[in-house]
Amino acid sequence: MLSHPASALLCLFIGVQTSLTAASTPASAPALPTMADLLAQSRPADWRALDPERTLYMDLPSGRVVIELTPWFATGHVANVKALARERYFDGLAIIRAQENYVAQWGDPNAEMPGKARKIQRAARTLPAEFDRAWDKRIPFTRLPDGDVYAPEVGFIEGFPAARDPRSRRMWLTHTYGMVGAGRDNSPDSGGGAELYAVIGQAPRQLDRNVTLFGRVVQGMELLTTLPRGTAPMGFYEKPQQHVPIRSLRVAADVPPADRTNLEVLRTDTPLFAALVESRRNRREPWFQRAAGRIDLSNVPLPVRARKEPAPVR
Amino acid sequence: MLSHPASALLCLFIGVQTSLTAASTPASAPALPTMADLLAQSRPADWRALDPERTLYMDLPSGRVVIELTPWFATGHVANVKALARERYFDGLAIIRAQENYVAQWGDPNAEMPGKARKIQRAARTLPAEFDRAWDKRIPFTRLPDGDVYAPEVGFIEGFPAARDPRSRRMWLTHTYGMVGAGRDNSPDSGGGAELYAVIGQAPRQLDRNVTLFGRVVQGMELLTTLPRGTAPMGFYEKPQQHVPIRSLRVAADVPPADRTNLEVLRTDTPLFAALVESRRNRREPWFQRAAGRIDLSNVPLPVRARKEPAPVR
Repeated sequence: MLSHPASALLCLFIGVQTSLTAASTPASAPALPTMADLLAQSRPADWRALDPERTLYMDLPSGRVVIELTPWFATGHVANVKALARERYFDGLAIIRAQENYVAQWGDPNAEMPGKARKIQRAARTLPAEFDRAWDKRIPFTRLPDGDVYAPEVGFIEGFPAARDPRSRRMWLTHTYGMVGAGRDNSPDSGGGAELYAVIGQAPRQLDRNVTLFGRVVQGMELLTTLPRGTAPMGFYEKPQQHVPIRSLRVAADVPPADRTNLEVLRTDTPLFAALVESRRNRREPWFQRAAGRIDLSNVPLPVRARKEPAPVR
Repeated sequence: MLSHPASALLCLFIGVQTSLTAASTPASAPALPTMADLLAQSRPADWRALDPERTLYMDLPSGRVVIELTPWFATGHVANVKALARERYFDGLAIIRAQENYVAQWGDPNAEMPGKARKIQRAARTLPAEFDRAWDKRIPFTRLPDGDVYAPEVGFIEGFPAARDPRSRRMWLTHTYGMVGAGRDNSPDSGGGAELYAVIGQAPRQLDRNVTLFGRVVQGMELLTTLPRGTAPMGFYEKPQQHVPIRSLRVAADVPPADRTNLEVLRTDTPLFAALVESRRNRREPWFQRAAGRIDLSNVPLPVRARKEPAPVR
């Protein structure tokens, strides 16, 4: 009774793909909808297809990591990472770091070895930092109601976790699970996108506004989180043979349509998403004895699913 | 420059064992101490050895997971899990679930198969829930200053993350990375310790006070976080051959001293720990451009290290 896989020992669902397979409503369901109920009720307009011009595929020997790029933030870094992908800068480079409960990082293992480093052709090596940006009222912000330890206001912008400060009139992306950024050296302008990282553990919010975020892993996180941890300081791999090779890193629009991963993500500016947040603030599944009545930015699921409609083609 | 393993692309340190190897202070270090500085300055009295009567070893084919049990919380579950370990209940059972960004879970894969389930000899099958307990002023609580989304007050009790509510006069352990609890079915009293789980991702704080926590993984988390993710709903493994066998699960006191893992954890009720929290609220390493000035309960490191002194023997 306690250990059968079908039982509800801990029936939170986080893996959204998983959840969709269990979206049917049990007979004992309470009157208020669960997230599973809401997703089952969602209409096509509640979802948006990933834009191939704003999507990266990082193909590893273990499979594909799909990264959505931000349209409204770090536009310099987004453009430069796409330029790097288009000159095939990353192909044959490697994941060089996996630090427990922190980040996985990839780039050129030989970047600091004169003569051996991968050359950048047309893209920029470094860019001015894009840690935050001016508050723009035209950018819809779905604010969460329960506050945040780190920022005055937190919520979602076009599917990405974000924060803003009404006093300084700045807004920024936040370091939560799956977010992707551009590593840098000590100088704020020393990044540019040739070295990338993804958050694989507890949201390291202390990094917010210290480094440029520009995207989010929307599929394939388990390919990064299950990587062997590096045993050198900060989780770097000690030996070259431990590096995980990157077969290719491409802008989805450059990949033949038949080879694309056809995904859609739940919109975060809809009544359905508001209902989903409310349902996660107050869990109604029969397993829960006590509803938190609150939710942290990092605990709001951002559902992603396979798209049945043909993908947009550019 | 951007990708050399020795550079400080993202120089947060989370892996405490790792951090200790990098504890030297660079010439450019600011006047205020970093966590590495503080640990380097720590005295033996800032640490406490794990008590073998309050420590579990779960030995997997990949290595050992060390779990510290709570002395002040869920005493019924702590006693019962020790009783289960002492009748070798877990030996030969398995990890049956690894859900991305959520939990790993272990117990009897055949628990619900009549005639095939592992029998419990002397321990209890189920126990009354121990989700929270009465506030006891004699239990020292190191409170964090920056608030929390879920609880009125959060901090640390004897090295464990905890919360309390001055209004209801209740206190409880919190679901943060590495915390270990007893899975249960829908009834609050259906758990007991025969089915266990550890948090392997973002702190699922909505579970607080919904399930009994009674310990924390202090070494070997990477053995759980890198497990292949289960592909059945909620991350259960679909096939028996995917189960990860538990060689043994023992109370450390029952293991010959030569085979014990001799660890000590940083005390959380000392001026040194207070300085460490302050240093993590305001990161001073040269990489940081902006100090958060705040910290979330889940982002406070709880250092663990190999102990040089002989382990206490009972």
